[in-house]
Amino acid sequence: MAQSLSRSPLAPTRFPDLPVVRGVQFASVAAGVKYQDRSDVMLALLAPGTTIAGTFTRSLTRSAPVRDCQDKLGLSCQDGAAILVNSGNSNAFTGHFGQTSVEQITRAVAGVTGVPEARVFTASTGVIGEPLPHDRIVAKVGELADGLSETRLKDAAEAIMTTDTFSKGASAQVEIDGQTVTIAGVAKGSGMIAPDMATMLVYIFTDAEMEQDALQALLTSICNRTFNCITVDSDTSTSDTLMLCATGFAKVDATGSSEFTSALETVMLDLSHQVVRDGEGATKFVEIQITGAESDSDAKIHGLSIANSPLVKTAIAGEDPNWGRIVMAIGKSGAAADRDLLSISFGDVLVAEKGWVSPTYSEDDAAVLMKQDEITIKVDLGLGRGHATVWTCDLTHGYIQINADYRS
Amino acid sequence: MAQSLSRSPLAPTRFPDLPVVRGVQFASVAAGVKYQDRSDVMLALLAPGTTIAGTFTRSLTRSAPVRDCQDKLGLSCQDGAAILVNSGNSNAFTGHFGQTSVEQITRAVAGVTGVPEARVFTASTGVIGEPLPHDRIVAKVGELADGLSETRLKDAAEAIMTTDTFSKGASAQVEIDGQTVTIAGVAKGSGMIAPDMATMLVYIFTDAEMEQDALQALLTSICNRTFNCITVDSDTSTSDTLMLCATGFAKVDATGSSEFTSALETVMLDLSHQVVRDGEGATKFVEIQITGAESDSDAKIHGLSIANSPLVKTAIAGEDPNWGRIVMAIGKSGAAADRDLLSISFGDVLVAEKGWVSPTYSEDDAAVLMKQDEITIKVDLGLGRGHATVWTCDLTHGYIQINADYRS
Repeated sequence: MAQSLSRSPLAPTRFPDLPVVRGVQFASVAAGVKYQDRSDVMLALLAPGTTIAGTFTRSLTRSAPVRDCQDKLGLSCQDGAAILVNSGNSNAFTGHFGQTSVEQITRAVAGVTGVPEARVFTASTGVIGEPLPHDRIVAKVGELADGLSETRLKDAAEAIMTTDTFSKGASAQVEIDGQTVTIAGVAKGSGMIAPDMATMLVYIFTDAEMEQDALQALLTSICNRTFNCITVDSDTSTSDTLMLCATGFAKVDATGSSEFTSALETVMLDLSHQVVRDGEGATKFVEIQITGAESDSDAKIHGLSIANSPLVKTAIAGEDPNWGRIVMAIGKSGAAADRDLLSISFGDVLVAEKGWVSPTYSEDDAAVLMKQDEITIKVDLGLGRGHATVWTCDLTHGYIQINADYRS
Repeated sequence: MAQSLSRSPLAPTRFPDLPVVRGVQFASVAAGVKYQDRSDVMLALLAPGTTIAGTFTRSLTRSAPVRDCQDKLGLSCQDGAAILVNSGNSNAFTGHFGQTSVEQITRAVAGVTGVPEARVFTASTGVIGEPLPHDRIVAKVGELADGLSETRLKDAAEAIMTTDTFSKGASAQVEIDGQTVTIAGVAKGSGMIAPDMATMLVYIFTDAEMEQDALQALLTSICNRTFNCITVDSDTSTSDTLMLCATGFAKVDATGSSEFTSALETVMLDLSHQVVRDGEGATKFVEIQITGAESDSDAKIHGLSIANSPLVKTAIAGEDPNWGRIVMAIGKSGAAADRDLLSISFGDVLVAEKGWVSPTYSEDDAAVLMKQDEITIKVDLGLGRGHATVWTCDLTHGYIQINADYRS
């Protein structure tokens, strides 16, 4: 269980101070869904006029709440919206009962907030295949509504944790047309993390104005460079949800603002890296930079093949500069590669070039680099201009320990 | 290193008694390529008239010996053939030097055996990216040639081991047109094992007669149901090689013989299962049967998605009947699935049906099954008639231990 795990050695020193995002309030409560003696349900209440964009897991066995959110995403936002998230149970693979749970919770939240049911979004994260005890959540919605406050985003971040060893938040502020626009978000995620989706649960709020179509396009685009470029274990969750809510309270339209796009990408990159830093059992944060590929998509395929290779990840855990396993991962990836044009570096140490170990390579230099907490692996394919960067962690005894015992 | 690992708990009790295959002789020797005090080079000498089929890794960073074998495979066999294999160094990603090593060894073997260089096949398995000390092998070819004997296939199996904890052999005999035909083979493999290739090093010999084209078609077809249906860790070797040599000494053409095909498949299935049973750190042998898929290829995609999922494999290691993770692996596989038509069993215990846990399911029954060494997972997609069976092992602390320390 989450509580018994010690804090990741890669965790930030503390949770950041998050600025208030005008137009959204938060509350959390301990409902005893599965965990005892900790908060496990969060509620966010969004003001009328808020636009919401989202991306979700592509899993064909995705959960009832994910399906419900997907159905509701494009609907009108004139009457506000609410998001309720529980941890401890994912309400995935729970048959018709799963949809009933979503409906019961949605109705209760609508009842206490005045938001239409069609604008109440839910998410659930935790064990798969057990019925969600929705009555425990429904019993607490009144208490949640009473506790709503603009300053409780930090509490919300704590309520959505499962095997996470630290709560995850990030923020940014930018000036647009003389107005200060705020972005703040929270995330949870530690295992069952693989890309090509909106990883795990991530909620980002801004007081900028933006039409839903533009907001969705922006979110999808940045997601492909951030959350869809991380992996902990190559396993894709049935619950992954990323939502971006724009309340408009800053009274400035951020559509097309490069400052806003850049600030949002910073927040999303930060949150996605925090998920990797809390990868189950992780002791190393690894950035993999691929250049010289035939295309950007080929570069990403190579990067993820390296990032998902158990042999590469265990070598990093063992602080072994084992570039032979990187060669292996490139060879098996399915994307274009020419053995004799490859070059590989660890940080600034050139390891291999032109199909073999570099004459300047010193294993002692590389071994020193591998002892660091943060490792950069650079691969140039020598074929074209395609590039991508992906992030992962190492594979350690801690991962086995967590997953041979914890039921997720 | 291999020698320090204890024998897999899933290993057969002993190496099988292998019958002599007429027309092929074996020898092994300790050349000190990397390992000390153990044999590390094997030689097989095949009589004139032997036909040879092979399948090899599709890795784009495959080794120099693999490329050399692929070039030579279709050539005439009138003058016999030889196969030399070393362990301890894979001669992969060794630039132009790698091809030089192959040529030096090939020339030396041709010199002592009288076989043309174009019919000398080599293979190397072990660490990637270090120059192969081919002089040590060349210095021993005379000793190898002097030691050749029809009865030394067992010694050959030992010489090709790396992280293997036991040597692997299998055989079969069938009657065709009143003649006894013998098949015997050896394999090595323990980590860097993933399908869609001819897994690791496998050498199978028969005294049947068969034209090269027919032999190749038969090998490829059976490989797709055996070696290409196993996975230990989803990582694909740069050296994978499977060769089947038919000496013809039984004086009976086995082309089209269903008895021969069946016997060969039995040998190949046995060897492929032995590789899984020696999976690095393995404590459970897992068979995954997929039925009801839209197609056979979809069934295989689902089976391998389950077999390669770190979360499924760690749950099995923890003896946890965590069928939620199987649902997750099906959802992410990319092949067709309908959550509400899925059914899942562990052995004969029906766990889930119609998108949720079965009303008859008892976790106690499933927990008992999970304590066994051999576990069968059955998934029916409920969509069509596609089926496949794949084999894997669990993911344990042993895998981390081996691969955070051993450089392969």
